[in-house]
Amino acid sequence: MTNQLIIFDTTLRDGEQSPGASLSVSEKIEIAKQLEKLNVNVIEAGFPVSSPEQFEAVERISKEVGVTVAALARAKEIDIKAAYNAIKDGEKKRIHTFSSTSDYHILGKFGDDRYGKTLADKRETILKMSYDMVQYAKTFVEDVEFSAEDAGRTDLNYLVEVVEAAIDAGATTINIPDTTGYTMPKEFGEKIAYLMEKVKNINKAIISVHCHNDLGLAVANSIAGIENGARQIECTINGIGERAGNASLEEIVMALKVRKDIFEIESKIETKEIINTSKLVSGYTGIIIQPNKAIVGENAFAHESGIHQDGMLKNRETYEIMTPETVGVQKTKIVLGRHSGRHGLKARLDELGYIIEADELQKIYDAFTKLADKKKEVYDDDLRILMGDSKNKNNAIFDLEYMHVFGGSSTIPTATVRIKTDEKMLEDSSTGDGPVDALYNAIDRALNKKPTVESYRVRSVTSGREALGEVTVRIRKNDRSYTGVGVSTDIIEASAKAYITAINKKERYERNNNKNKTENSKSEI
Amino acid sequence: MTNQLIIFDTTLRDGEQSPGASLSVSEKIEIAKQLEKLNVNVIEAGFPVSSPEQFEAVERISKEVGVTVAALARAKEIDIKAAYNAIKDGEKKRIHTFSSTSDYHILGKFGDDRYGKTLADKRETILKMSYDMVQYAKTFVEDVEFSAEDAGRTDLNYLVEVVEAAIDAGATTINIPDTTGYTMPKEFGEKIAYLMEKVKNINKAIISVHCHNDLGLAVANSIAGIENGARQIECTINGIGERAGNASLEEIVMALKVRKDIFEIESKIETKEIINTSKLVSGYTGIIIQPNKAIVGENAFAHESGIHQDGMLKNRETYEIMTPETVGVQKTKIVLGRHSGRHGLKARLDELGYIIEADELQKIYDAFTKLADKKKEVYDDDLRILMGDSKNKNNAIFDLEYMHVFGGSSTIPTATVRIKTDEKMLEDSSTGDGPVDALYNAIDRALNKKPTVESYRVRSVTSGREALGEVTVRIRKNDRSYTGVGVSTDIIEASAKAYITAINKKERYERNNNKNKTENSKSEI
Repeated sequence: MTNQLIIFDTTLRDGEQSPGASLSVSEKIEIAKQLEKLNVNVIEAGFPVSSPEQFEAVERISKEVGVTVAALARAKEIDIKAAYNAIKDGEKKRIHTFSSTSDYHILGKFGDDRYGKTLADKRETILKMSYDMVQYAKTFVEDVEFSAEDAGRTDLNYLVEVVEAAIDAGATTINIPDTTGYTMPKEFGEKIAYLMEKVKNINKAIISVHCHNDLGLAVANSIAGIENGARQIECTINGIGERAGNASLEEIVMALKVRKDIFEIESKIETKEIINTSKLVSGYTGIIIQPNKAIVGENAFAHESGIHQDGMLKNRETYEIMTPETVGVQKTKIVLGRHSGRHGLKARLDELGYIIEADELQKIYDAFTKLADKKKEVYDDDLRILMGDSKNKNNAIFDLEYMHVFGGSSTIPTATVRIKTDEKMLEDSSTGDGPVDALYNAIDRALNKKPTVESYRVRSVTSGREALGEVTVRIRKNDRSYTGVGVSTDIIEASAKAYITAINKKERYERNNNKNKTENSKSEI
Repeated sequence: MTNQLIIFDTTLRDGEQSPGASLSVSEKIEIAKQLEKLNVNVIEAGFPVSSPEQFEAVERISKEVGVTVAALARAKEIDIKAAYNAIKDGEKKRIHTFSSTSDYHILGKFGDDRYGKTLADKRETILKMSYDMVQYAKTFVEDVEFSAEDAGRTDLNYLVEVVEAAIDAGATTINIPDTTGYTMPKEFGEKIAYLMEKVKNINKAIISVHCHNDLGLAVANSIAGIENGARQIECTINGIGERAGNASLEEIVMALKVRKDIFEIESKIETKEIINTSKLVSGYTGIIIQPNKAIVGENAFAHESGIHQDGMLKNRETYEIMTPETVGVQKTKIVLGRHSGRHGLKARLDELGYIIEADELQKIYDAFTKLADKKKEVYDDDLRILMGDSKNKNNAIFDLEYMHVFGGSSTIPTATVRIKTDEKMLEDSSTGDGPVDALYNAIDRALNKKPTVESYRVRSVTSGREALGEVTVRIRKNDRSYTGVGVSTDIIEASAKAYITAINKKERYERNNNKNKTENSKSEI
């Protein structure tokens, strides 16, 4: 057993399955590079068989980062082959295959025709399938992880059998997911202890845990796992993921660090990169962080109460168990102004985790000087949203050329837009309940589309009146939702950009997907 | 030991200490009444000695609700007397007094002159002070709670002595706060078990826990407390509170309910009121809930993945450990339309937790019909933000009468406003970086004020284009921040309302506070 905890980040796989969080390939690569700076051990980059876009993302990430890249695959040959093909040119590669093992899942998802009539028959089939598919994965790579989906609700003795079989077949990591976020920390710790005791060949594999947060216990369950022998934690930045999300990487890492007096194990995470990573992920996914979120929320280190502030002044440790600097919160965030040059801008953007290609720099610099003209001081957060916006401009199918709005207490709000496409220029105008509604109606008319707006949000991240406004819009078409982010000192303009970005994402997805339909777009463990 | 868990809600005390969350007295009363519907056992309503506004809130709440109302007091006669005076006319009353007991706090906050030169001397003084002040509180009420601040980092044997003394002096509830969110669940559980074993008179009091979320473990620590004998949980709605907040009421309650197979204890919370309460608190405090927040986040019950949705259709239990209906999420949220009458509106608002005085109903109904004209269907969430807005209008010092804006790609954004005060009508105009900036500049000019804007957020809660936009603005003046919420189908108008509401809050606070300055405005355990 090692004293180094393996941090397996699944932000790009399980995290991206959050409703509305879909990321483009280039956004995924950028996040992957930032995760490498954060020093995670394994990046789960996606589920290659599920779509050409997922395949491409995994393939490109595994070529561009030096850490282990895991690709997800159901216990099926077609999935495992696709996973291997996506990672084969990478430096360190892992195939991560999974089967369901709980009775809920076995009875709910596996048909009688292929898996047997009784529960016992089905369990037997799944056991054999798991063994075979781990063996199959081993023909491609040495590093194979096996997950027992819904292990949290799986019969413990059956789980022992499945885990033993997977290790026999060559699995080097065994993952125990609490897929539905059902278990209590003490109970989950006992399950891990039971496996450590009963699985005969357990010393040949690393035990991993993958906890969901439906009852708010994902981090506590992960820690209970560690206390009982788990040496890999599967987690996401900001705890994003399906439903209430996954265990938060930042909370687990900081708990181990703050309490190194009681844990004999530590991660090698570069904690100073936590805030950068958190903001990058939140910006690209559009999933906001509540102010009272531990570690990365805007209030996590803020103190309001009188007595409290007094205590703080006298002795920082009175109320602070860790300093904001440890996780990369900087006291003074001013970095650049109108006289900063290209080199200074690029250096700062590199530090913040953005990857600037040579041919992009001039465009970004132009946007920066335009902003620096309006704001005397340009903060890290201004740069972050500026970058989010620049990324959106790339590969746009529709591009907003011009807009105008007016409105007020006794005026009918009216908007006019001009949108550029490959072929032509579209213009239209409309009224609405307010300027943004009018604007969206005008865009709909110009494009002859009318998607459902699921949510609309604006925040200004930096302080001061000249702060950039960041608008996040989520639209829905059929079963999928798409998030667009737009940014400007003018929130009306930002609203238009966000809406068009979301529409662009939808268009791109639909065009790609019509080319190559697949059975399942995503998965869940 | 009882099998009923006492839910002590401190949303109105510790929750309100979240930066920017300050609530008006009427908002607090409304939340208290909703907490009563939620069926909490104890409402901690505030810290009466700290300000006249806090005193008034506690006093009014204790007259208006039937559940126990707790008032916070340091271990000082002046605090305890104020606490008693605030709750004395209530039906069920509790004084909650506290001392710091960890060495960090003792050395950081207690001066040599009054508390002794050595740590041992100081500990002795604090022990005696705690005993005396519990006795003093007992002269007023039977129900006295004592908290050992920062118990999570307190020397265990000293903690045993303090707890024993407090019980000897008559405390009926002993609270063990993990003030800095430092402890791990296993460790915290062991501390509670140690107290249960070593404190001789422990059977004469109920043990309570109060956990903070700095490492994301507040809920897990609370559960570890319960497993080891705690019978009261201190928590807040949405987990709000200083820094990363307190334990979430909804997560603890649902964990016990979902896992009633392993817990022999249950709360009497009316879980169907969870969503109503959550939205009421989020609306009034302006503290947003992230989509991946357990139980109450907008994605908590949403499923994105393909396999997953497939599993859902076949068998709901495959991925769902509780139904959304259990916590009050309603499938169909349409309630009212333009033909709904006053009675229907009032009935629905009652159900949502709002208290409508007879003289308010007409005004609210007018706003409702105006909205129903724009939107064919009025949802619960529309009503919630409509109510938030109506409340803001009450007691406004400044009232927005008229506004007009225009802007666009090649226009200088310009805004004009007219604001009514008690004495006169103020008018002005200004340009800005965008329509909202122009508007805020115009308001500043009219009022001759220029507060710092700390954050600015918009969300549309309901779906569809005609959705109401809710704008939340946080401004700062000196050491305090003030949150204003504004609502309209026009987000520019909502932005103006939110800004003016925040300014109104600041004005009210400053006018009240100049009347009666006190030493400390807030407290922390």
